[in-house]
Amino acid sequence: MITVYFAAGAARWPSYEAPLRQALAEAGITAALSPDCTDPAQVDYIIFAPGGDISDFTPFTRCKAVLNLWAGVEKIVGNTSLTQPLCRMVDPGLTAGMVEWVLGHSLRHHLRMDRHILNPAHIWDPTCPPLAAERPVTVLGLGALGLACATALRAVGFPVTGWSRSEKHHPGLRCLSGPQGLQQALTGAEIVVLLLPKTPETENILNADSLGWVAKGAAILNPGRGDLIDDTALLAALDAGHLGHATLDVFRTEPLPQDHPFWAHPGITVTPHIAAETRPATASRVVVENIARAEAGAPLLHLVDRARGY
Amino acid sequence: MITVYFAAGAARWPSYEAPLRQALAEAGITAALSPDCTDPAQVDYIIFAPGGDISDFTPFTRCKAVLNLWAGVEKIVGNTSLTQPLCRMVDPGLTAGMVEWVLGHSLRHHLRMDRHILNPAHIWDPTCPPLAAERPVTVLGLGALGLACATALRAVGFPVTGWSRSEKHHPGLRCLSGPQGLQQALTGAEIVVLLLPKTPETENILNADSLGWVAKGAAILNPGRGDLIDDTALLAALDAGHLGHATLDVFRTEPLPQDHPFWAHPGITVTPHIAAETRPATASRVVVENIARAEAGAPLLHLVDRARGY
Repeated sequence: MITVYFAAGAARWPSYEAPLRQALAEAGITAALSPDCTDPAQVDYIIFAPGGDISDFTPFTRCKAVLNLWAGVEKIVGNTSLTQPLCRMVDPGLTAGMVEWVLGHSLRHHLRMDRHILNPAHIWDPTCPPLAAERPVTVLGLGALGLACATALRAVGFPVTGWSRSEKHHPGLRCLSGPQGLQQALTGAEIVVLLLPKTPETENILNADSLGWVAKGAAILNPGRGDLIDDTALLAALDAGHLGHATLDVFRTEPLPQDHPFWAHPGITVTPHIAAETRPATASRVVVENIARAEAGAPLLHLVDRARGY
Repeated sequence: MITVYFAAGAARWPSYEAPLRQALAEAGITAALSPDCTDPAQVDYIIFAPGGDISDFTPFTRCKAVLNLWAGVEKIVGNTSLTQPLCRMVDPGLTAGMVEWVLGHSLRHHLRMDRHILNPAHIWDPTCPPLAAERPVTVLGLGALGLACATALRAVGFPVTGWSRSEKHHPGLRCLSGPQGLQQALTGAEIVVLLLPKTPETENILNADSLGWVAKGAAILNPGRGDLIDDTALLAALDAGHLGHATLDVFRTEPLPQDHPFWAHPGITVTPHIAAETRPATASRVVVENIARAEAGAPLLHLVDRARGY
């Protein structure tokens, strides 16, 4: 019998209780699973999410792993009391949803759909868009989410460049890396997708300089982290007519404040942090797989590297 | 030396001349290619399009094939003077463009993008759409275009049902056929894509009865033929709240007249016949491949069956 403390917030417990109990049963694990904790020293595993129920992890002396329900861990990785192994969520349901958001909005910008959705003058202009094969797309970040999106974009015909901090190779993708590869990756890109983790190195990676490298009229898609973009530089590039549009799912402050200039800007579409939603059914199976691995002495999946910060 | 008469309209000649000459040269075919015809009895091949330069095909006594630049042949198949073999266009560029339009608008409706694109009240509502795997899509028509779209929709995760006049089988697709299979194919569909040819049997195939079978809130995508839908029934189903939206690329009269109710209806998006655009570079290679086949005595590709009408 192991003790599993669901510390990811009381609001999430109703949607997670049943799928977690089912995943534990399917894995043959007998566990005391609860959203309450009477004795931290008896807890074997913590299921966590940013804004969850723990700020000091010190009393959890027996805890074998902290299992995060979100892909991003930047809000907890700096907690010095968290010395237990920390695992990110790589949820196949979340990945599928992210691919759908990125593919859908890429095709929306590629096909210039908005001029048909918003067409108050009823203009019939049969100018045909180019084929996807003629529309270069660049994905910044080739982690699990970035790679899945890059692969899906390639499959529908876009020529895709992927950029990552360290050198990577993936068949069918043009892979560039490091600070010197960034300018090359962005130059000429007509759609740019941001799927980098938030680290000191990636903050404001799209700024006045780097926004100048993309093709005139390019669309920026940010389902990653709000801090990846210099908001002022983005607005300036849109107002100058250099960028065509930006569709943003993540922001420095969420919900996006009502007085934020992004809301009313005609060149910006706000989506309310829906691209990367963890799905309880699939995420519960990932959490339980890591518990089973730890119990069997096997390596944990998606372990966070504290030095890199993700 | 063969004689090829480009009778697809003077407006198209400038964009087709160079790619046709290049494709003929690559195939090693020596041809007199011209948009003018001094002696019909000397013409070996006619490149044609609806609205083109010939209404009476009788004088073209030596013509071995009429090569249509469009996928649809309903405007010429009834011409009784056209006794020469008639080939439809199956252009890989046109197919790619159609797949992009269908995939893009399917994802748009799936993700309910319009409520973010059109959000004047700046509402932050992080309700997450379901995954594509939970969104049934039905494609009516499993010809070259319908099958390509069905396959692409399946590849991004949608469960896809395909319906065709005659029985077909394709791995990964639920295939239904015939009049009795139509109700089953439409029942519960949340996105319906129309890619049938225009024939007497397919006219108004979406009518008051069949629109009643789809799921409440469903989206209709018509990149096929305007005549496939009973316009009045479509408006009634939208106004009754049974349908969620219709995105239409084809109409009974084109350009869509300014006083047509589709333009101003909030539940309808009009796109100006851009989904199925023949691309000169790829289409020219298809035309020339058929000329090469005819010269070699090989069977023609995409030969129209006059009895079926496509």
